[in-house]
Amino acid sequence: MTTRAEIEAAAARIAPHIRRTPVLHLPAEALGAPCGAALKLETMQVSGSFKARGAFNALLQSPAAAAGVIAASGGNHGAAVAHAAGALGIPAEIYVPAIAAPSKVARIREAGAVVVQGGATYAEAFAASEARRAETGAASVHAYDQPEVLAGQGTAARELEADLPGLTHVLVAVGGGGLIGGTAAWFAGTGTEVVAVEPEGCPTLHTALRAGMPVDAPVGGLAADSLGARRVGSLMFELARREIRESVLVTDEAIRDAQRRLWSACRVVAEPGGAAALAALLSGAWVPPAGARVGVLVCGGNCEPGSVTG
Amino acid sequence: MTTRAEIEAAAARIAPHIRRTPVLHLPAEALGAPCGAALKLETMQVSGSFKARGAFNALLQSPAAAAGVIAASGGNHGAAVAHAAGALGIPAEIYVPAIAAPSKVARIREAGAVVVQGGATYAEAFAASEARRAETGAASVHAYDQPEVLAGQGTAARELEADLPGLTHVLVAVGGGGLIGGTAAWFAGTGTEVVAVEPEGCPTLHTALRAGMPVDAPVGGLAADSLGARRVGSLMFELARREIRESVLVTDEAIRDAQRRLWSACRVVAEPGGAAALAALLSGAWVPPAGARVGVLVCGGNCEPGSVTG
Ligand SMILES: Cc1ncc(COP(=O)(O)O)c(C=O)c1O
Ligand SMILES: Cc1ncc(COP(=O)(O)O)c(C=O)c1O
Repeated sequence: MTTRAEIEAAAARIAPHIRRTPVLHLPAEALGAPCGAALKLETMQVSGSFKARGAFNALLQSPAAAAGVIAASGGNHGAAVAHAAGALGIPAEIYVPAIAAPSKVARIREAGAVVVQGGATYAEAFAASEARRAETGAASVHAYDQPEVLAGQGTAARELEADLPGLTHVLVAVGGGGLIGGTAAWFAGTGTEVVAVEPEGCPTLHTALRAGMPVDAPVGGLAADSLGARRVGSLMFELARREIRESVLVTDEAIRDAQRRLWSACRVVAEPGGAAALAALLSGAWVPPAGARVGVLVCGGNCEPGSVTG
Repeated sequence: MTTRAEIEAAAARIAPHIRRTPVLHLPAEALGAPCGAALKLETMQVSGSFKARGAFNALLQSPAAAAGVIAASGGNHGAAVAHAAGALGIPAEIYVPAIAAPSKVARIREAGAVVVQGGATYAEAFAASEARRAETGAASVHAYDQPEVLAGQGTAARELEADLPGLTHVLVAVGGGGLIGGTAAWFAGTGTEVVAVEPEGCPTLHTALRAGMPVDAPVGGLAADSLGARRVGSLMFELARREIRESVLVTDEAIRDAQRRLWSACRVVAEPGGAAALAALLSGAWVPPAGARVGVLVCGGNCEPGSVTG
């Protein structure tokens, strides 16, 4: 299971390549929320989301990376692997399904990766990528269920704690669970509670916690392109079961409202998955106890900027 | 003339009301620039621009403010005065010309101010505001040519220096000159050079420095709504003449390109006036000497978010 020591090592490893993203503290009035919140702005991370942390940490330790790297993702993971590979001088092939958003595909290409677009679904693109990888001996980076990825994602929590010690709660969005897994590993035993937030349309962790194991969940709604994993990773699940006491769901309308309020309060553009954690606080889906000192990971900004006021 | 001591006092006075905005350091590659730059993100300031600093510093010292405050501006100054007045519980009337952008007018209204829209030009709105002020005895806050405003704007430079000591150059956009006046006052005698940046379409300081005194300049181009003062203030001019060695002009195309690059490099949305200073570095209008350590004030984000990729 991921440890603080592994996250410390990851932080040192990736430091030359990633940004220490800013933390902006907004008071309750600015947010229209029951309490203030410290926003960790991973929207400003290289590649536009925290996913670059795990991608760099995995690639920097992969013996196979010299033969290139292959990933399947038309979303932030694909953009992060493409960016990390480009920065490290490693050839990258990113397999994306036909339905991937053209703007995200363009971003992957701009980072210097070869985009292989095909297959109707993510599963088909993934199968194609695995076949190709067997052929070439290239490295792969999993979007969430890989120890190096969990440790890499945990470095965001480490920075947040260093910048703002003494938070009582940190709100984190969940897809496959890499981000929250790394975050829970970092805060384990510190007294800071990690709160899981998911859209009603893709409740992977919520469903898994109820079932007592990772199981398939629906994939839909506004944030499906970033939070729509089919189920949480097995590596994160034990951590989650032990460390995460609260798992809340938010509506698409709450996510949209959080995007709007981020824009109007502080000119931050967050994609739906990036605004979901804050939506839990703003909508009342999660209610802070009296005296709470709340941190929120605003974890991605890969959307059309005009979409946040729509 | 504005002093460091006045700026220190302003910083203490306004601290409960403004945000200490983040500084994001981007390397040369991320910007596509000859060197990296530290971006001071006043886009995230309350009211969406640095103008809140001067507005709070002025209102907090104004004996007349109990009778309310009146300002004439359909832009960031109006939004800042409206916000500061709202926060301090002071009634505000903001006079805006008929041509003011509806989105900015809406923002002023949301801050709780009474908007009085009328007059074809800014000058007419200003005349109406002065007549009303004479009647009511309300306070006014000048958009730039007032000692409290210069000292307030200088607090952004103070934060930048504290966060990142040893900058060799700081790039600052100029309208009426309050921001660069406060910045030059802060950095006077420190070895950090302040570089003035203006659009070709509204070169107030450039024209004044050549003429040896504040004179009227054209008002036009993409950034006119924030940088389009008719001439620089008299208070800042002596400071500028003594402290500012370089005054450069940028094209509207360079400003638009800087907006696009801010978005693609770090998901920052800056309005044209907010991106102008960075445009000088990116376009080559200003060339950093070898070894330069450059800071840039990204001074406002009050635009439609979708406009930055247009
Ligand atoms: C913006 C954003 N937030 C959150 C997540 C969820 O991360 P994880 O899959 O590690 O739970 C993702 C995943 O792509 C994402 O892109
Ligand atoms: C975003 C922005 N940048 C720069 C300026 C110029 O400030 P000053 O008038 O103090 O020179 C303004 C003025 O409104 C502004 O709104």
